[in-house]
Amino acid sequence: MKQVRILEIKQSVFADNDRQAELLRQDLKENGVFLLNLMSSPGAGKTTTLMRTIEALKDTLKIGVMEADIDSDVDAETISQTGVKVIQLHTGGMCHLDAEMTRQGLEGLETGDIELAILENVGNLVCPAEFDTGAVKNAMILSVPEGDDKPLKYPLMFSICDVVLINKIDVMPYFDFDLARCKEYIHMRNPDATIIPICAKTGEGMKAWTDWLVQEVSQWRM
Amino acid sequence: MKQVRILEIKQSVFADNDRQAELLRQDLKENGVFLLNLMSSPGAGKTTTLMRTIEALKDTLKIGVMEADIDSDVDAETISQTGVKVIQLHTGGMCHLDAEMTRQGLEGLETGDIELAILENVGNLVCPAEFDTGAVKNAMILSVPEGDDKPLKYPLMFSICDVVLINKIDVMPYFDFDLARCKEYIHMRNPDATIIPICAKTGEGMKAWTDWLVQEVSQWRM
Repeated sequence: MKQVRILEIKQSVFADNDRQAELLRQDLKENGVFLLNLMSSPGAGKTTTLMRTIEALKDTLKIGVMEADIDSDVDAETISQTGVKVIQLHTGGMCHLDAEMTRQGLEGLETGDIELAILENVGNLVCPAEFDTGAVKNAMILSVPEGDDKPLKYPLMFSICDVVLINKIDVMPYFDFDLARCKEYIHMRNPDATIIPICAKTGEGMKAWTDWLVQEVSQWRM
Repeated sequence: MKQVRILEIKQSVFADNDRQAELLRQDLKENGVFLLNLMSSPGAGKTTTLMRTIEALKDTLKIGVMEADIDSDVDAETISQTGVKVIQLHTGGMCHLDAEMTRQGLEGLETGDIELAILENVGNLVCPAEFDTGAVKNAMILSVPEGDDKPLKYPLMFSICDVVLINKIDVMPYFDFDLARCKEYIHMRNPDATIIPICAKTGEGMKAWTDWLVQEVSQWRM
């Protein structure tokens, strides 16, 4: 297995994270790098969705991935099998990434000619929502087994996401999950959110998601 | 539907949480109250497991429940249907509870003759693991759809739990979840952890769990 680089990121020294996030977005714009911040609960399917996304887009876009985790490098090793550039970020126990930590990650990744950089954030619906990473767009994955009521319980996460992927729709028959009600709850929190039901395992719905992503990347790089 | 009391808990003023947690445990011991801290990812099945646990034990033990959530009171309303004492704690955006916040919750619950108090912590595998709530025992629920690799990624949570309930075992055939491997990973983090596979929806395995709980409560109250 390919050796994955591990970067231990340091805690930020900046008090004003929003300012740092804006500065990072400006730098990304200048360098033509689109940064996607991907968030979810533990086990919602971030890595599997990423694998499928990379397979679909790696001939179209130059992709780089940052895998943030408290510990372990299992996800980065999985992603490295796709052949794209990947780096493992260890947060040293921190439950989220802020803009300065994301900047350290991007420097470690050495974006160079990368067009689409993806940050797989720590699996957590609370803290990552509170810190602007400097990403151009925020995406989150809600998986069917978690239940359709999650937008009621984790309001901030749903309100800051540009796109919500509803994953594991293949197991819908085995869970009490009402897709229409879930969409309604999401739009209560965020009327502008794009909602795309997918199954990363079977590939269902992935075209709608990658189309959305490709369009956002080209708009940003225009 | 019964009106549920909502308590807005304030941020703690104490720097030394471990000390506060020890003091709380001493008070609980003196008053014969067993406090269980129940943690998990969002959507792993804390509330459903609690419902089943209460149904099984409410004629044996006097139970009180604290439902911690960032927002919303859906869980507390659900629990209130069982007829046990319940209070909703709003953390005001906080991603975890510490000992002082838990003490506020217990005072709000008015433990009085309660023998078993249960804190349903915020759905999060990271931050709640870092703060001793003062509970007598820590329990966590890992659900099958989340994957068997979670002990690798959230080491602290698994290392501090006395008991791990592996929930939603009814859907095991639809997920790539290896129970033996999962147990091995949990014991890597915590050799002493009791592991109980359950399905809160169908009731499978619930007897083993409530037996464990009843024994712990009587030991504590001896």
